[in-house]
Amino acid sequence: MLSPAAGLLAPLLRWDDVAETFSDAARVQGMLDFEAALARAGAAAGVIPASAAASISSCCASARVDSAALARDAALAGNLAIPLVRQLTTLVREQDAEAARFVHWGATSQDAIDTGLVLQLRAAVAATLAELDRLADALAALAEAHRGTPIVGRTWMQHAVPTTFGMKAAGWLDAVMRQREAVAALGERALVLQLGGAVGTLAALGEKGPAVASALANELRLPLPDVAWHTQRDRVALVATTFGILVGTLGKIARDLALHAQTDVGELGEPLADGRGGSSTMPHKRNPVAAAVALAAATRAPGLVATMLAAMVQEDERGLGGWHAEWETLPELVSLAAGALHHLADAVAGLRVDPARMAANLEMSRGLVFAEAVQMAVAEKTGRPLAQRLLEAASSRAQAESRPLREVLAADPTVARHVSPEELDRLFDVRRYVAAAEPLVDRVLARHAAARAAASDGEA
Amino acid sequence: MLSPAAGLLAPLLRWDDVAETFSDAARVQGMLDFEAALARAGAAAGVIPASAAASISSCCASARVDSAALARDAALAGNLAIPLVRQLTTLVREQDAEAARFVHWGATSQDAIDTGLVLQLRAAVAATLAELDRLADALAALAEAHRGTPIVGRTWMQHAVPTTFGMKAAGWLDAVMRQREAVAALGERALVLQLGGAVGTLAALGEKGPAVASALANELRLPLPDVAWHTQRDRVALVATTFGILVGTLGKIARDLALHAQTDVGELGEPLADGRGGSSTMPHKRNPVAAAVALAAATRAPGLVATMLAAMVQEDERGLGGWHAEWETLPELVSLAAGALHHLADAVAGLRVDPARMAANLEMSRGLVFAEAVQMAVAEKTGRPLAQRLLEAASSRAQAESRPLREVLAADPTVARHVSPEELDRLFDVRRYVAAAEPLVDRVLARHAAARAAASDGEA
Amino acid sequence: MLSPAAGLLAPLLRWDDVAETFSDAARVQGMLDFEAALARAGAAAGVIPASAAASISSCCASARVDSAALARDAALAGNLAIPLVRQLTTLVREQDAEAARFVHWGATSQDAIDTGLVLQLRAAVAATLAELDRLADALAALAEAHRGTPIVGRTWMQHAVPTTFGMKAAGWLDAVMRQREAVAALGERALVLQLGGAVGTLAALGEKGPAVASALANELRLPLPDVAWHTQRDRVALVATTFGILVGTLGKIARDLALHAQTDVGELGEPLADGRGGSSTMPHKRNPVAAAVALAAATRAPGLVATMLAAMVQEDERGLGGWHAEWETLPELVSLAAGALHHLADAVAGLRVDPARMAANLEMSRGLVFAEAVQMAVAEKTGRPLAQRLLEAASSRAQAESRPLREVLAADPTVARHVSPEELDRLFDVRRYVAAAEPLVDRVLARHAAARAAASDGEA
Amino acid sequence: MLSPAAGLLAPLLRWDDVAETFSDAARVQGMLDFEAALARAGAAAGVIPASAAASISSCCASARVDSAALARDAALAGNLAIPLVRQLTTLVREQDAEAARFVHWGATSQDAIDTGLVLQLRAAVAATLAELDRLADALAALAEAHRGTPIVGRTWMQHAVPTTFGMKAAGWLDAVMRQREAVAALGERALVLQLGGAVGTLAALGEKGPAVASALANELRLPLPDVAWHTQRDRVALVATTFGILVGTLGKIARDLALHAQTDVGELGEPLADGRGGSSTMPHKRNPVAAAVALAAATRAPGLVATMLAAMVQEDERGLGGWHAEWETLPELVSLAAGALHHLADAVAGLRVDPARMAANLEMSRGLVFAEAVQMAVAEKTGRPLAQRLLEAASSRAQAESRPLREVLAADPTVARHVSPEELDRLFDVRRYVAAAEPLVDRVLARHAAARAAASDGEA
Repeated sequence: MLSPAAGLLAPLLRWDDVAETFSDAARVQGMLDFEAALARAGAAAGVIPASAAASISSCCASARVDSAALARDAALAGNLAIPLVRQLTTLVREQDAEAARFVHWGATSQDAIDTGLVLQLRAAVAATLAELDRLADALAALAEAHRGTPIVGRTWMQHAVPTTFGMKAAGWLDAVMRQREAVAALGERALVLQLGGAVGTLAALGEKGPAVASALANELRLPLPDVAWHTQRDRVALVATTFGILVGTLGKIARDLALHAQTDVGELGEPLADGRGGSSTMPHKRNPVAAAVALAAATRAPGLVATMLAAMVQEDERGLGGWHAEWETLPELVSLAAGALHHLADAVAGLRVDPARMAANLEMSRGLVFAEAVQMAVAEKTGRPLAQRLLEAASSRAQAESRPLREVLAADPTVARHVSPEELDRLFDVRRYVAAAEPLVDRVLARHAAARAAASDGEA
Repeated sequence: MLSPAAGLLAPLLRWDDVAETFSDAARVQGMLDFEAALARAGAAAGVIPASAAASISSCCASARVDSAALARDAALAGNLAIPLVRQLTTLVREQDAEAARFVHWGATSQDAIDTGLVLQLRAAVAATLAELDRLADALAALAEAHRGTPIVGRTWMQHAVPTTFGMKAAGWLDAVMRQREAVAALGERALVLQLGGAVGTLAALGEKGPAVASALANELRLPLPDVAWHTQRDRVALVATTFGILVGTLGKIARDLALHAQTDVGELGEPLADGRGGSSTMPHKRNPVAAAVALAAATRAPGLVATMLAAMVQEDERGLGGWHAEWETLPELVSLAAGALHHLADAVAGLRVDPARMAANLEMSRGLVFAEAVQMAVAEKTGRPLAQRLLEAASSRAQAESRPLREVLAADPTVARHVSPEELDRLFDVRRYVAAAEPLVDRVLARHAAARAAASDGEA
Repeated sequence: MLSPAAGLLAPLLRWDDVAETFSDAARVQGMLDFEAALARAGAAAGVIPASAAASISSCCASARVDSAALARDAALAGNLAIPLVRQLTTLVREQDAEAARFVHWGATSQDAIDTGLVLQLRAAVAATLAELDRLADALAALAEAHRGTPIVGRTWMQHAVPTTFGMKAAGWLDAVMRQREAVAALGERALVLQLGGAVGTLAALGEKGPAVASALANELRLPLPDVAWHTQRDRVALVATTFGILVGTLGKIARDLALHAQTDVGELGEPLADGRGGSSTMPHKRNPVAAAVALAAATRAPGLVATMLAAMVQEDERGLGGWHAEWETLPELVSLAAGALHHLADAVAGLRVDPARMAANLEMSRGLVFAEAVQMAVAEKTGRPLAQRLLEAASSRAQAESRPLREVLAADPTVARHVSPEELDRLFDVRRYVAAAEPLVDRVLARHAAARAAASDGEA
Repeated sequence: MLSPAAGLLAPLLRWDDVAETFSDAARVQGMLDFEAALARAGAAAGVIPASAAASISSCCASARVDSAALARDAALAGNLAIPLVRQLTTLVREQDAEAARFVHWGATSQDAIDTGLVLQLRAAVAATLAELDRLADALAALAEAHRGTPIVGRTWMQHAVPTTFGMKAAGWLDAVMRQREAVAALGERALVLQLGGAVGTLAALGEKGPAVASALANELRLPLPDVAWHTQRDRVALVATTFGILVGTLGKIARDLALHAQTDVGELGEPLADGRGGSSTMPHKRNPVAAAVALAAATRAPGLVATMLAAMVQEDERGLGGWHAEWETLPELVSLAAGALHHLADAVAGLRVDPARMAANLEMSRGLVFAEAVQMAVAEKTGRPLAQRLLEAASSRAQAESRPLREVLAADPTVARHVSPEELDRLFDVRRYVAAAEPLVDRVLARHAAARAAASDGEA
């Protein structure tokens, strides 16, 4: 059976562990798992014979589906469940003619398709969480290691004032941890059983409907919603937006990596590996491939999320077009998110950090990045407006004359009146300046440590 | 001061209570509220004099801002906070020259702009929650009143099997209640203080940074995040996706209303009012205006959410373009959501329901909508595959010959062998058929009642 | 080699003829065709030996590529061309060691990838045009056959005034013809050669650069642009937007089909076929599958187009992420468009039209749909405002009392004063009313006939 | 009357000349211009009295519309035309009671609203074209002036090989010229008359329908389409996609400007002006505001285009929601495009170019950017594979030992065997290397000159 995860671009743009959960084979198995569990639930609730449930269930576990026929028939039927149920019925009949009568008992196509999707998503979420942990750990290690490593903070892509590389990493980590929480919450909030029958009333099961639904939720270990959600798509939309925000978060990290990896900046570099990031024609190139993959995902995710939101407007008890629009879109979005996450986790885990280049770049503007600090010190004496005018003038002079700002300021009588040379030295001391970042980094690291500890407890 | 909420289309597409929270005036006041609270927090932490804080604070409460100058200077500066802080400083100086020195102490433009936005969003969320309650109450009343009103369930826009209008309303209510929870959760999850100074380290406040931030969060009654989120935009993205899913939910309801209000269906109608839904040229028209407004919002929201996700990729410590892309997009999205919600709440509260037409439409197919029920009954004797073939044939014959399905089936010997005439009568009894929906409707209504009771307790 | 066109959902959502042009195999062959033609062009311009060109060219025609290795290496290299060129070089060397030295001479990866894509798109465009002709012909036949078939015109999904089904079909045809022109224009406007070398200057080819580019354009029968377009992506964006508008046009037709195919309306139906549009549980269902497929595409295309537009912001001489975002997005968009087109052309070609039901639905409102016509007639005597008030009152009365509007009007003394009974008869004559549509339909049909004749001339 | 163009952020994000064409006042005037011309056309075709036409026409020219009432009534009616026609009728009646009877004769609301929009768009397109000319001229001047100025070409944001700044500017210009053509083509392709009456048949005008339409097209100097396009929205979608691609093109230029303006790169800078691009807290900052504005537009445009495409799926003869979704979206998109264009034209016209810094950055990698040139030269002797391995090794060594590549290569015996020292000098000569770009730049400049000359001829 072919897998959309198997294309030539898959190893570059996706990640096998998640892409496989959305393969055609996994899609079919998800529906078969639903049918098997439905049969067992039906038996438990007394609506189908236990022996039939056993036959159906065993058949679903090892069904040899004719994919070509399935695809061809789905083109006529409008969905995969109709021909799959027909194939399954035939397979069951070969083994247990009586049981064949009870295949898909009480359910509608969408019950099988949606619950199958939920099972696929549950696997994808579990894999994603593990990879988010790997990324978070790598970011925490960076934040810890570079808590005090000065780097120039950049705003509007211009040098602003100093910060630390640990602070940058802590900012990334802070956001990644929030995404981990949001993805983890999907289990309860979004990945719930779908069972409603033709129009959501479970009428075909009569009074036993609720009992079957409850048994089925147990079988599949899925939360049981109050009513079916055939055309109430907020839950799948929430999966989409959660992964969309995750991708945006990864895209921000990737943009930062790409900017810092520029030849002109050189502060960071993706891990070196044979064949990694080369050029077909330029022998000296080392392209930031992981950043490109994550940024590509961040370019694509907004459109895919928009599709899932647009698809929410579904008609009456079963949508016409909107539901169909979800089938490839949500798997694609989750796969791309996982691909970006996986490649980025690799890149961050092996990140080449060049503190010397960071220091050199900080020096590049000859002290202009300390202008704000001096301004604040002067302002304490003169107020902010005068201090700002003073520092703007000194900064302009320093730039025009290619002189250190420290030197220009030292020669300024107004400054001299308000700031002693020792104080000036202190103001131009980068270590002192960036000390403010340390407690902030520590807060984030503490939250990470607590989350990891809680997770270990949970596992233990 | 002009308000984007004030345009000619605003009363149609938006809702004043929320649109006003995003007027230019409210935007400026949000930033002034930040500056006032920052001054008081600075005084509380001992970084600026208490008297300066008092002067700044009082000035912010009644500031007469020169909007034209503000707009013109923002075009050069690149944001509104820079010229606003300048105007504010001048105003404070006129009143208390000493205090003017301490305006905006320790903050950066983005701190004022983002926190101002958060304050605006908090007001918008509160108004939205109240309107969501109004919609939910109206839906609950419909579900209650029509718990047993039969209506044909439609899948793929074709008649499927019977359900109740109460079940439809319960489905809408179920989804709306989830959106209410999601919007309410934004307060803690997304609407938090922004304070980081130039690059997020609060360096300009030295050791007092955390104390000022904490005091400021108290002043504004906003959650205090571990670190600033200047370029970590997942929180504002979450606001966008939450409102995006809300709009999708409303769009689904509106699509259903529009379908049921078709002249050809006529089961539902928006409230009648003088001048409502007329035509410039057709005297007999009653157009479903609220549905159109909600569907327009549902058409626009996905693109606006996509913009907010795309804007997440912001550079280093301050974004170039991404941040600017948020400024009009998020207010527009929230305003459109509120407009759709408000108009839809009106329409649902005054909905014209025609149970007789529902009954007539159910009859239209001469019993075909009971084909599944008969099939299930036959299947209990013959298994699903044979039953399905039998009912497909009978259904085709009934359609081809324009005869009631009940009559065609009664004449079928196979059916007669498995189903008695009494059983057939029972199977074609719509009340019996839709009884399965009642406990489901009740579950949703019970959840709604519990939520309302909890809210009342909270208020009491 | 696996094909993304080969998944289980492909026959439902896509169309083989176009999907195959975007298979992995076709992607590789597109690049190999580029490399072959580049070698021949290089030989023609005298930059590589003719014998080398022959060897490379023959090798590209029958290359046995190791797809697994290609995919794996691309994940490191960041694109497919780098490992493909390496594999090709090895293959050529086995046959002609000397020739191996000249593989990919003077080109960069993006030259091969982009030109390969252009070749794939050219094939997809040709297939799309043929299918657009098929759809246009089917629509023209409908417009011709139903030029005079009355149907109620619906605005805001409410009965408005009569029109003809031919007019509806002509409206669809009018729009489809414009899309055909737009898709055909892509050949000249967008599907041009990409050849620039490392940074677009063709420097590696020295003075022979322009000559090689010109010869290569000839070889591939592609327009030659003034400069390479490595990071100027307006042309591929134009392909995306053109297909996006095509899908929107198809979606509009599909929405109309779905509305007219509702059980409650019953004026149109998709072709009947065994297994087509059935239900897994409801034996009487005939779902409009083609409409669903086209509406699904119309739900997805906007997001995919948005991605292509977002991807236009590419850095300097080679984009980081934006380019990568195009690779799956554009093929997906074009494939979905072709799928929608193919299924819709089938549905329109075999459309079941029910003029009797159209007539019955027109009668449903007991003449209200003629209210505007009477109003215009009265207005000629009384002016529009009075006439409008008059007709609104009469319409309301007719609805409230379930009486024919004709009868209510006949009893109104003001109407009687201005409109004779004969004139009233004339005004309620639907054939007369819809006569105005005929010349409009004819105009569109004439344009279609002219376009078809011109195309035949072109082929002859 | 309030203008959406008038908000605080308008001078930053939009451009008055275009934003004003979408003000509320202009929206109303567009509809009034339609009503005036409709009256004159009706008179010309003999369907209304000439005197009535004169009264209506003069009234439309100076109508004092009650905006508050208009907005309020539109919220009930569902669009602006219904209450506007009512107000207009009242105004006409005060002046000429007879004429009041013929206001809006034969048209439907959508005719007035859509044609009014087309008139607004025509004005916006004209202004946009002038500004595109200004940008193109500025880019041509840059390309001309820096035809030979070396700069490092960057791919994947890494130094690649040398190019010229003139080549970069020519690449921008090439794309901008294509957008100018596409925007200019909108006049014929998209900005056409809308007149169809209630459902597109012009039935209310009887046999005179086509004559009125033709006269109206003449009056308004608009192309006359074969049939009305009430729910065939490809033309407005084309306006959207054309502006969307324009914005993408501007975004690419802006991204390049932002990258080159980085403190770490310093090759380009936006014009300096008092108050431009400052910081509220950092005295030395000069932020690239125009780039930010254009990138913000490029972030927002894809979502807005997606909305216009999604809105294409409109029902039957008048859409429910889709049409409403266009009303604010298209003006917003065009306004943002114009804002980005205007600010970028300013920035490019006054761009600060630093050839010395370009030269210094080229030197930064100690000759690695010539690695490809040497590789090609060696490859001519050894074939590409060996040459590539050789140069990769030399490049790595040069980087590892911080030595010039020229020096490393000179010491390599294999290189020495194939390349003489003189040849090596030649290969490391940047002027020689970038000479290949000159004819390409010239082609683009020639096309620009021809276009400008043709435009002058057109005006003369």
